Amino acid sequence: MRAAVMRERRLVVDDVPEPVPAPGQVLVKTLACGICGSDLHALRHAERMVEAARDAGAGAFVMDLARDVVMGHEFCAEVLEYGPGTAPRLAAGTRVCAMPIVLHAGGVASVGYSNEFPGGYGERMLLAEPLLLPVPNGLASDAAALTEPLAVGEHAVAKADLARTDAPLVVGCGPVGLAVIAALRRRGHEPIVASDFSPARRALALRMGAHVAVDPAQERPFERLAQEAAGRKALGFECVGVPGMLDRLCREAPAGARLVVAGVCMEEDRLHPFVPIIKEIELRFVLGYTPDEFAGTLRAIAEGELDTAPLVTGRVGVDGVAGAFEALAQPERHAKILVEPWREGRLA
Amino acid sequence: MRAAVMRERRLVVDDVPEPVPAPGQVLVKTLACGICGSDLHALRHAERMVEAARDAGAGAFVMDLARDVVMGHEFCAEVLEYGPGTAPRLAAGTRVCAMPIVLHAGGVASVGYSNEFPGGYGERMLLAEPLLLPVPNGLASDAAALTEPLAVGEHAVAKADLARTDAPLVVGCGPVGLAVIAALRRRGHEPIVASDFSPARRALALRMGAHVAVDPAQERPFERLAQEAAGRKALGFECVGVPGMLDRLCREAPAGARLVVAGVCMEEDRLHPFVPIIKEIELRFVLGYTPDEFAGTLRAIAEGELDTAPLVTGRVGVDGVAGAFEALAQPERHAKILVEPWREGRLA
Repeated sequence: MRAAVMRERRLVVDDVPEPVPAPGQVLVKTLACGICGSDLHALRHAERMVEAARDAGAGAFVMDLARDVVMGHEFCAEVLEYGPGTAPRLAAGTRVCAMPIVLHAGGVASVGYSNEFPGGYGERMLLAEPLLLPVPNGLASDAAALTEPLAVGEHAVAKADLARTDAPLVVGCGPVGLAVIAALRRRGHEPIVASDFSPARRALALRMGAHVAVDPAQERPFERLAQEAAGRKALGFECVGVPGMLDRLCREAPAGARLVVAGVCMEEDRLHPFVPIIKEIELRFVLGYTPDEFAGTLRAIAEGELDTAPLVTGRVGVDGVAGAFEALAQPERHAKILVEPWREGRLA
Repeated sequence: MRAAVMRERRLVVDDVPEPVPAPGQVLVKTLACGICGSDLHALRHAERMVEAARDAGAGAFVMDLARDVVMGHEFCAEVLEYGPGTAPRLAAGTRVCAMPIVLHAGGVASVGYSNEFPGGYGERMLLAEPLLLPVPNGLASDAAALTEPLAVGEHAVAKADLARTDAPLVVGCGPVGLAVIAALRRRGHEPIVASDFSPARRALALRMGAHVAVDPAQERPFERLAQEAAGRKALGFECVGVPGMLDRLCREAPAGARLVVAGVCMEEDRLHPFVPIIKEIELRFVLGYTPDEFAGTLRAIAEGELDTAPLVTGRVGVDGVAGAFEALAQPERHAKILVEPWREGRLA
């Protein structure tokens, strides 16, 4: 099948072996698959990512970089065929979402960061039958494909354990920050203060539900938060994921703040612990989502509680994936680009 | 008056100006004052500590190192004389404890990390009248002097917000770790697993209430915790406070662990955020205590709920302070050494 393949640190379009479903697995056709910031990081720093995964005991993310990897883990797909001995719970042709995890004889693997299980930058994938969730009637496939990244925001907000009176600040308005904003808005928190250097990202933040969007080059986000929500406990969401952010947020946050770390920094970082110590800051590191949160996010999108429309800024075929990665490296133009492997197409 | 003075990075015994109480202040005679690990750090890395304090916005700890500082903030004292216009709530001769904070025209200062307010390594101090707590009848002054370090443990455990089913691990059995152990034991948590490289410190940990004391050179503390309390959530207390501890604990802790950072690291530290991210670890940085916790700790000591006897391993006069600092730099012999400025005496 045709796929955008990570090979020798580059993305190339090539034919890769057709996936064949084992027991418990389902062969699906990729309808739409979002490009994730982690994929950009994986392409640029693949060795470091594998080392970090190994280091952190996350075996499901350890790839052999000498072999091909087809990335893509934010997808909507269509059921084609079940593996042997696997009950066909959903008819062929059913559109589905699923957590990007698959079970195989060797254990658990991730779909999209694996040598064995191609992700959604290819025409077809293997998914775990028990994880399939039918797309509720009528929801467009591209909206359903946003279940995964929006579930990340739902999870971060659930883990944040906000009280009604807590004042949220979202630092970084890439896809993770925008998902956090959407989840905060859905729960009725206000005011939601967002912060990003990019004017386009600040505009997106407002469209996704932020009440105020701050340019950190112009004013300190936590100071603005204090103005907007005087006397309330600061709850910061770190959604950037580059070295230096933790130290900076600890310095800028007020005493007693809780910081939820949703940005995925895969490099070594430096911190001056005395700063969070003096302020009694709490750092909650979060990742991913639970199966319930994933299913709940799909339902919330289908019921119009989470608006995906502002997020999708481009669509490409597999031939357009490499160009899309380049475009996403700078924040002004794009937020989420969807790969639709069933068609040709590059960014204009 | 006579004091052990920090001067040009050394401890010297000298006469310093007699403190004179201003309105709202009380002149007291130091009866006993514990030597704190932070004082050792301050002597060795004074510039760095001042820089860290300034950096963290902790103005009360910013000293002019070109001028004398009399350290000592863990004390029991005797009321001598009140400042002008200050109601003599407690009669002269009353033994008292107090949080080491004093109010003056310029704001709040710390007693013991200040050029203006000498701490308990001197014969007399100035304290804030509203903060004076009479020592309950009969409690020995050296036991009362342990209120401050034990309050640190009470606070760390309160902030940890342990469920009955959480399994605590105390990493590092210096005075902070021992105080945490005492606070955990007082609340009935079990099993309490403690970890320290030093056999003497492990023995002290057991005397202070730990159920198990692990040598991390022999076995991994979190693995032992998992054996002792299978299936229960790990709650680690970092009580060492040197660079590298956070990274190490994040690597060794199981997924979902909460780490309470009670060790005070004043240097730059390195962390690989991907490790706590993958494991969804929570870091709670804590410091000090509330006035309520301080008063409650004094009561708990007086009522025999907190045993101070194992902690005190030595007593010196001001002439013995420099030697005591040297002895405390290695953990085998001493835990808490009390300074009693009213007498002569060095460590044997």
